[in-house]
Amino acid sequence: MNPPLRPEPLTKDSFAPFGDVIEVDGSQFYLINGGMVQRYHDLARIDVATEGGHALLNLFRGKPYEYPLPVKMMERHPLGSQAFMPLSATPFAVIVAPAGEQVGPANLRAFISNGHQGVSYRRGTWHHVLLTLQRESDFIVIDRGGAGSNCDELHFPADQQRLFDPR
Amino acid sequence: MNPPLRPEPLTKDSFAPFGDVIEVDGSQFYLINGGMVQRYHDLARIDVATEGGHALLNLFRGKPYEYPLPVKMMERHPLGSQAFMPLSATPFAVIVAPAGEQVGPANLRAFISNGHQGVSYRRGTWHHVLLTLQRESDFIVIDRGGAGSNCDELHFPADQQRLFDPR
Repeated sequence: MNPPLRPEPLTKDSFAPFGDVIEVDGSQFYLINGGMVQRYHDLARIDVATEGGHALLNLFRGKPYEYPLPVKMMERHPLGSQAFMPLSATPFAVIVAPAGEQVGPANLRAFISNGHQGVSYRRGTWHHVLLTLQRESDFIVIDRGGAGSNCDELHFPADQQRLFDPR
Repeated sequence: MNPPLRPEPLTKDSFAPFGDVIEVDGSQFYLINGGMVQRYHDLARIDVATEGGHALLNLFRGKPYEYPLPVKMMERHPLGSQAFMPLSATPFAVIVAPAGEQVGPANLRAFISNGHQGVSYRRGTWHHVLLTLQRESDFIVIDRGGAGSNCDELHFPADQQRLFDPR
């Protein structure tokens, strides 16, 4: 049995191998609208143009899982980035593994958003499906629309699955 | 002096001449992630490809104005749509006028988001800058990046300005 998977702090630096953290803290802004608005500009790379794709704006309403949770499956989107921003300041968990073909349970890393942080998975980054923590929560999701096969799944055998414990 | 401008209810139908309302109510979803997530799919047209543009993801932090507020200026983005989604369920106001060259204070219409509704202005739609109501509020904003002149302003003479009263 592999060791349990526990979360690390979510920061721009710690998450850099997997994509962007969408947050105000530590981000640059400039003033617009006569000084009334701080524009935190271009916080995540929206990388959706491969094979004629375009950006989609969606809302995901996710139910919470029970934890600890066995990590059975990871997915990746080879044709586009995917960004999640929580509405209503709801913490959520993120499990990722580096892009590439040689990925196993030992490569998993987990992070917890404080509810004011969103994430954008870089194109091809392996990630778990949405992991809402305490209660049903809404997210704005920016991903790719268009033709092409844009979801690969990686299933772990039962004896290799790690237990994710967010506490 | 033109009559005061008062808000109408914000619905997909009432806002249709100007763009999209981003909301769960009245929107279609399908289930993903083994039934754990409702995906409300493609809620706003992200129309940013003109002249080689691409989608930007930004966060706007807006200070509240004092009301009633004279409507002095409207702007439009001729090269791209612009979507606003409130974080933390914060109501905000929207003032719009139809796309086109023949727009004056008589053409203005105002709406109030309930805080769970976002809006996306269609490319070329005249709109007021962000109108936060009660307190400093954050919004995710999806608009266009890339070369080209993407902001026109329309200023109203003082004797034609209408007072916007959100109450």
